[in-house]
Amino acid sequence: MTASAIREILKITQQPDVISFAGGLPAPELFPLAEVRAAANRVLDTYGPAALQYSTTEGHPPLRGWIAAQAGIPAQNVQIVTGSQQGLDLLGKILISEGDTVLVEAPTYLGALQSFQPYGPNYVQLPTDEGGIDVDALEGILKTTRAKLLYAVPNFQNPTGRTLSLERRQRLVELTAQHGVLVIEDDPYGALRFTGEPLPSLYSLGLALAGDVDSNHVIYSSSFSKTLVPGLRDAWVQAARPVVQKLIMAKQGADLHTPTFNQMIVAELVEDVLPRQIEVVKKAYGERARHMLDCIGRHFPGGVEHTTPEGGMFLWLTLPEGIDTTPMLARAVARKVAYVPGAPFYALGGGENTMRLSYCTATPQQIETGMQALGETIREALD
Amino acid sequence: MTASAIREILKITQQPDVISFAGGLPAPELFPLAEVRAAANRVLDTYGPAALQYSTTEGHPPLRGWIAAQAGIPAQNVQIVTGSQQGLDLLGKILISEGDTVLVEAPTYLGALQSFQPYGPNYVQLPTDEGGIDVDALEGILKTTRAKLLYAVPNFQNPTGRTLSLERRQRLVELTAQHGVLVIEDDPYGALRFTGEPLPSLYSLGLALAGDVDSNHVIYSSSFSKTLVPGLRDAWVQAARPVVQKLIMAKQGADLHTPTFNQMIVAELVEDVLPRQIEVVKKAYGERARHMLDCIGRHFPGGVEHTTPEGGMFLWLTLPEGIDTTPMLARAVARKVAYVPGAPFYALGGGENTMRLSYCTATPQQIETGMQALGETIREALD
Repeated sequence: MTASAIREILKITQQPDVISFAGGLPAPELFPLAEVRAAANRVLDTYGPAALQYSTTEGHPPLRGWIAAQAGIPAQNVQIVTGSQQGLDLLGKILISEGDTVLVEAPTYLGALQSFQPYGPNYVQLPTDEGGIDVDALEGILKTTRAKLLYAVPNFQNPTGRTLSLERRQRLVELTAQHGVLVIEDDPYGALRFTGEPLPSLYSLGLALAGDVDSNHVIYSSSFSKTLVPGLRDAWVQAARPVVQKLIMAKQGADLHTPTFNQMIVAELVEDVLPRQIEVVKKAYGERARHMLDCIGRHFPGGVEHTTPEGGMFLWLTLPEGIDTTPMLARAVARKVAYVPGAPFYALGGGENTMRLSYCTATPQQIETGMQALGETIREALD
Repeated sequence: MTASAIREILKITQQPDVISFAGGLPAPELFPLAEVRAAANRVLDTYGPAALQYSTTEGHPPLRGWIAAQAGIPAQNVQIVTGSQQGLDLLGKILISEGDTVLVEAPTYLGALQSFQPYGPNYVQLPTDEGGIDVDALEGILKTTRAKLLYAVPNFQNPTGRTLSLERRQRLVELTAQHGVLVIEDDPYGALRFTGEPLPSLYSLGLALAGDVDSNHVIYSSSFSKTLVPGLRDAWVQAARPVVQKLIMAKQGADLHTPTFNQMIVAELVEDVLPRQIEVVKKAYGERARHMLDCIGRHFPGGVEHTTPEGGMFLWLTLPEGIDTTPMLARAVARKVAYVPGAPFYALGGGENTMRLSYCTATPQQIETGMQALGETIREALD
């Protein structure tokens, strides 16, 4: 149902005269195309047929080693996966049994729900506000509910753009450790902070609490899709060794290994190109986000609440109660602008008056025109 | 247990002075390296950033279209997957529920067992002989057992190298249709026939029987890993539309899509490079297989049975009863030769006196020396 809703929206956004804030794609004009081309050639020249041969399930050693060094952990605590989506699927497969309680933000990342669904979780929604998950509410839920897993996107969340505050990170990590609840920290956007100060990952707080990389109850997932390019499908999971060992077994059955060639290309790019690319992307997305926020002030009626992302790709609107953004989408498209209705991002329903906007693939003129049209659509719905 | 056994074997085969017939890798010296390099550059020049962007779950349309045209079916009956292994995993996920009976050859492809295992199948083994599955035995089993699925590798099976005869193919397709049992036909090696006449696929026989592509009870899986290169991880599934629709949903959750760049590279190669490459690989593997068979005649003691593959990568030895090839492996390695013991390929046990040999990555001298050493190892075990 949610997948087909998104499918229909993607069809709409393919109409060339519709300005789409609905997508979840990174900006393709920023891709380091020449650098990827050079790296692909260098890989084939350096490794020869080995670049096109089967390789180990764990991942290309130089790439695995680089990721591990960045995190200050041993390489054996890193598993390379075919996109973050595969990391979530495999974690679902090894951690979730039919009926297990999984705590998710309300709203949460739709793709995670899709990944976990085949394993039969029982979702409990965690209330959120501008500072992310309400940890007092979490504490209450943990006292009454035996949960297996908590799934969260602490940095510039998809769909809301919100960031979990430092104090809440600390309490979330402590509370889940106390109650024996595993945490999956999904962090595809963390490197793309365009304002404010970086916060420690749940993973690093879990590591400090456990004192040992193999006792950390936080599992960390990230990706090169949003910082470098998505079409190579290179991502990773960091976790305690017992979790990684199960991931290796699950991944063997799932696709043997992530494409050798692609891992080698990314490994060629991480030292020099990736840091430069992150600066390019942050600058562009920061400008586009500020412009979109500015348009909200100039073009929108009163009573519309919005988040103010400090990084990442999305912001979130909450319209006055009573407006349903799902049927409103057709009226927006009639005005040549598209968004994603917020309701599908709620595991257990709610959020009918919310929507997700992506600012990262639109030009300044498109943001101006599109936000004006969206403001008119909302104004009309309020009448 | 089986995965770790194979892991240990792979470690042994990495010792440079051991001649390994244990691998399942295609011969890397045959890879069309220059052609892949040219295709990668052409793809980036032609498609630009779109080659590195997210793409549709179903697959790159020109690649999907080419596969469909080869099979004479609509493109919507084809799903691109990240290696055949992913096809098997997703088919397991959408078709197998806890406790469902799955019929498998004895012995069968180990990777399929690994893919299906998380979904809780109840395996029933089908007896086989030189002509593949014993269809009389299959008929008996179908009369007494309510099976969900039959999994088979009809061409040059992994691990035995055997091919299912035409008459048996016809009966297998009819019997499974009558009893409402789905068939997964796994065919990674079918294009690599180096002797004898090609046989119709179970898929094509199922299509003829059903009269309609969307009513075919046979699901077909194949790959570019053995014909072109494995490290790009490009493979596909052909099936009735209701199965493909479920595969699309499952694949969205599993990895969103197969890497865009890789699919585009393969699409560049299918018209001209692939047919030439298939000829190159068939010629080389045919020569190597004949040499290995010849060595069996010259170096092995009596009482060792072997299959005579007409294509593919493997042959299978059955040693006299009482010899266990698992402990014998250490003695073989002491003589600097490695193989895969046969027992792990049996879903429910058996085959202690069998082994799989791959002939495709060894030089003529290695085949000669390695088979001589293996003959001595077997002779010693018989004493």
